[in-house]
Amino acid sequence: MDYKKYFSEDVPSFMRSPVREIFSKVNLEEICSFAGGYPAAVTFPTDVIPGLAGKVLQKYGAKALQYGPTQGVPELRQEIAKRYEVPVSQVQITTSSQQGIDVCSRILLDPGDIVLANNPVYLGALQSFKAYRARILPLTYYYNNADFRKDNPGKVKFIYVIPDFNNPTGETMNLREREALVGIARELDLIIVEDSPYRELRYSGQEITPIRELAPERTLHLGSFSKIFAPGFRLGWIIGPEPLLEQIYVCKQCLDLCPPVFDQYLATEFLCGGALDRNLNKTIEEYRQRRDLMVSLLEKYMPSGVSWTHPQGGLFIWLTLPEHIDTVALYEKSLAAGVAYVAGSFFYVDGSHRNTMRLNFSYIERAKMEKGIKILADILRSDV
Amino acid sequence: MDYKKYFSEDVPSFMRSPVREIFSKVNLEEICSFAGGYPAAVTFPTDVIPGLAGKVLQKYGAKALQYGPTQGVPELRQEIAKRYEVPVSQVQITTSSQQGIDVCSRILLDPGDIVLANNPVYLGALQSFKAYRARILPLTYYYNNADFRKDNPGKVKFIYVIPDFNNPTGETMNLREREALVGIARELDLIIVEDSPYRELRYSGQEITPIRELAPERTLHLGSFSKIFAPGFRLGWIIGPEPLLEQIYVCKQCLDLCPPVFDQYLATEFLCGGALDRNLNKTIEEYRQRRDLMVSLLEKYMPSGVSWTHPQGGLFIWLTLPEHIDTVALYEKSLAAGVAYVAGSFFYVDGSHRNTMRLNFSYIERAKMEKGIKILADILRSDV
Repeated sequence: MDYKKYFSEDVPSFMRSPVREIFSKVNLEEICSFAGGYPAAVTFPTDVIPGLAGKVLQKYGAKALQYGPTQGVPELRQEIAKRYEVPVSQVQITTSSQQGIDVCSRILLDPGDIVLANNPVYLGALQSFKAYRARILPLTYYYNNADFRKDNPGKVKFIYVIPDFNNPTGETMNLREREALVGIARELDLIIVEDSPYRELRYSGQEITPIRELAPERTLHLGSFSKIFAPGFRLGWIIGPEPLLEQIYVCKQCLDLCPPVFDQYLATEFLCGGALDRNLNKTIEEYRQRRDLMVSLLEKYMPSGVSWTHPQGGLFIWLTLPEHIDTVALYEKSLAAGVAYVAGSFFYVDGSHRNTMRLNFSYIERAKMEKGIKILADILRSDV
Repeated sequence: MDYKKYFSEDVPSFMRSPVREIFSKVNLEEICSFAGGYPAAVTFPTDVIPGLAGKVLQKYGAKALQYGPTQGVPELRQEIAKRYEVPVSQVQITTSSQQGIDVCSRILLDPGDIVLANNPVYLGALQSFKAYRARILPLTYYYNNADFRKDNPGKVKFIYVIPDFNNPTGETMNLREREALVGIARELDLIIVEDSPYRELRYSGQEITPIRELAPERTLHLGSFSKIFAPGFRLGWIIGPEPLLEQIYVCKQCLDLCPPVFDQYLATEFLCGGALDRNLNKTIEEYRQRRDLMVSLLEKYMPSGVSWTHPQGGLFIWLTLPEHIDTVALYEKSLAAGVAYVAGSFFYVDGSHRNTMRLNFSYIERAKMEKGIKILADILRSDV
């Protein structure tokens, strides 16, 4: 049978995640992986989960195993509302923050629409925008080009940004940059999708006001439990203006009816008893050490001509190599030597910047990190 | 702010579930609810879940809390493959079988496409097809209308059907009907989406070959854990031809990366140890009694002129009332008297058949059922 003739016009725009493809081919335990954005297993509150499961069933009974409200269970929405000081009516629970990106795209984008985003941009967002056949353009290009704006009226629906510890670069927008972004969004009358999965993972420097507080009327703020609880529960949330959440709610009914209910009650109990914050403090301490170790290893081993970002939080460091080094071409060689990374060009809409790479420091144990960075540096040195 | 101008052209086609709207306004414990399709709380394996949670963490460790493969964890895919005697490569785990409907629609439908379905049709499917701006037409209309077919080439992508204990009617297609459907699908070269959430809930009569076995080359078979484990875990599966699953896999990457991992391992352990089948036997016995009780109560209380289906399984009985009775108009009166149902016209694309209603017999305890049916019969009698 030829199945192609059945496919929606969207299908050719579907993009495979190179990271997921890498991970489907290697055993992460056997290599030094700087690829992916996996949390460290040691940060998972494994010990407390059987106890939480018992408590959830005792406290909520069959309700924890039944269908739940599409907006999320009220108990978890209240905990999120309390934590981030917003009304409950502005909180929607999502089945992963990836679903948050998808559902925002779904209610806002038509084929040919434009999303403004920094370049490079988070792969999962790129996948989602492309799946809706949207174009992704740099914010600066659009803002500085009045002719282009005039020729594309109403085509831009939103600005997508990760202001805290950006994936893939690890960089953080300062307050002035956030205010400027909000100024542009107001001037051009655009919605802002503030993707914020790493915000609570700060290892140094001062917390900066989130965009949702600067422009609550136009910001859809996406949060995630993946890095502060565990990704295996697939839970996130959206904070945003009620008229937008209302459409997201109706849309989500036909996506999956409701987020996983049992998992939501586990998260509720993990949050309300203070266990989340205790675990988060340990997680931050662990990741701070991993980040510091990686920076010191880069300083120790990397050949000259290689530079990197100095993230104050999150999971990633971004490397820029001499122009002639092609991280896509080097990948197989690196993997054969036991080291995985993600080529930076995958995060560029046009596949450019082949002399960049993203290194993750959260997943790999400290004991293996030196070996991995040394191997990687040797490969780059042989090419420098 | 006027948010409407940002919305995708899809948004006006989003449809609210009347069932979800009903449920958001009432306390199910306080009324006699024949609405919804909720499983009975007594069928949930509540007692074994804390033990399963402990076992999952002991056996799979941090893997159960980490991100997992987009296709589902291999252990669960293998259990499903074994149970339904299909290759693992033909199994995709979904985050609920509603997601199964959504993702099939997403890879197949463009605006203006046609889905062939029986009338009445499952509400969640109707919502999904409408959200992709598809038209829903009866299979018989399309098949018997060669001119219409000629005028709409390639517009029909698939036939949607619930062959076992249909939602909302409770009816089951016999083998001859299934073979005829497959014959038409082959003649017109169409895919079949076989939605099968209730298949394992058979209380009488003989099992009938599923459509996926009659036409494996063109069937996407949707399964669900909601009725045989618990809906709070939001897990389902798709069995289908690999080229179709391949697109679903790529699409699902940007929907939610992967299904809930911890829940998948709970389901794996529930399945592989035989606990699922033991619990299913008890569930079937409980629901058989509820069905039999409801049928006997309908016989006892319903006024003449009311008829109903006699389902061999599933969760629903479908009532047809005298032509002049309007179940939409009667709903508020019924709710005020403490009884909830779903008006049958909600399941019709054109909102017709206002003299029908769907009664669910799985959720309500047997002790409350007589009271509810008596109240409902009195309301109908006052209108007959």
